[in-house]
Amino acid sequence: MTLVTNTIRNGVDTEKMFATLDLIKAQPELAQFQFRASNRWIDGAHNRSTIKGFYAAGGEDASRTEAFVIDAGEPAILLGTDTGANPAEYLLHALAACLTTSIVYVAAARKVELTSVESVLTGDMDVRGALGVDDEPRNGFQRIGVSFRVTGNAPEEKLREVVERAGQRSAVYDMVTNGVPVAVEVSTD
Amino acid sequence: MTLVTNTIRNGVDTEKMFATLDLIKAQPELAQFQFRASNRWIDGAHNRSTIKGFYAAGGEDASRTEAFVIDAGEPAILLGTDTGANPAEYLLHALAACLTTSIVYVAAARKVELTSVESVLTGDMDVRGALGVDDEPRNGFQRIGVSFRVTGNAPEEKLREVVERAGQRSAVYDMVTNGVPVAVEVSTD
Repeated sequence: MTLVTNTIRNGVDTEKMFATLDLIKAQPELAQFQFRASNRWIDGAHNRSTIKGFYAAGGEDASRTEAFVIDAGEPAILLGTDTGANPAEYLLHALAACLTTSIVYVAAARKVELTSVESVLTGDMDVRGALGVDDEPRNGFQRIGVSFRVTGNAPEEKLREVVERAGQRSAVYDMVTNGVPVAVEVSTD
Repeated sequence: MTLVTNTIRNGVDTEKMFATLDLIKAQPELAQFQFRASNRWIDGAHNRSTIKGFYAAGGEDASRTEAFVIDAGEPAILLGTDTGANPAEYLLHALAACLTTSIVYVAAARKVELTSVESVLTGDMDVRGALGVDDEPRNGFQRIGVSFRVTGNAPEEKLREVVERAGQRSAVYDMVTNGVPVAVEVSTD
C-alpha cells in the first residue's frame, strides 16, 4: 500500500515515468512521435478540428477510442459568432497547458508534491497586422505574459526551480518562443 | 433581399468587415487587443483553461455571456489519461483554425465563394527533448506540415492566391513560424 502511494505523485505514475525515460534512453528510435489534427471549415469563422491518431514509440497509437472534437470561432467584433475560442486564444491555452503539465511532471520527478498550479496568460495584439490594414505591426501577439501561482510541499526556491526547469522542457514553450518551420501544401480539386 | 445576400459571403458579413477595416484605418488606437486564458491544474496531465474576457477596440469586451472551458491531457504513453487533446495537438488546432479563418475572410473580401476548406496538420517530434533524455533534439516539433484542400467558385490560381494571402495575414501562423517573446512570472504563496 505504501509502495503504491509512493509511486503516484501529483497524479503521475513516477515508476512508469522513469521506466519510459529508461526505455527511450536505451532505444532512442522510440522517441519519434507525430501528432496530427484534421480541420474542416463549417461557416464564417467557425471551423472544427478532429484529433485522434498519432504515431508514437515505433507504431501507430491505438489507445484512443474517441476523437477530440474542438470548435474554433471568433467574437462578434472579429466577425464571428463565438462558436468557440479563437485561434490565438487556443495558442494561449496550448502554452498554458504545456507549461502546467511540464511543471507537474518535473515536480513529480523531483519528489515535490504540488497542491495547486494556476496561471493567467495574456497576449497583446495590434490587429492591424492580421486584418491587413497596416504592414508594420506583426500579425501575431507582440508579446505573451504568463503569470504562474504554484504551491506545494517544498520551499519557494525549489518550486521556482521546478517552474524554471519546466520552461526548459516544454514543447509548446519551445515552439512559441523559437518558432517552427511550417510547410503548407494546397490542392484545389 | 439581393443586397442582403450579397453582403454575407462564406458566412462573413463583408459590409461589416469593410466597415471594421475602415474604422481601424481611421482610428488605429482601436486596433490594440488583448486575449487571455486562465489555466488550472486538476491532476496529472489534466488541466483546464477558461477563456472569456478580452480587450478590444478601446475597451473590455462584454459580448461573451459564457466562458469557453477547454481541457487538456496526455495519452497513456505520455503518462496521462486522455482527458483532452495534448498541448502540442492544441497548437496544431490553433494553427489550422487560424489559417482556415484567414482563408475564409480573404476569400470573402475577394468575392470568392468557397465550398470547402479542409486541412490535415502533422507535427513531428523527437520526445527525447521534452522528456529531458537528450539535450540535442529540440523540445517542440521539428517541423509542421499543413495540407489544405480548398474548393470554391474561382479558378485554381485565384484559390491558391487566397491561401497564400491568408498565410501572410494569419496571427497564429506568424507566431508559430516566427516565435513570440514570452515573459514568465512565478509566485509561490
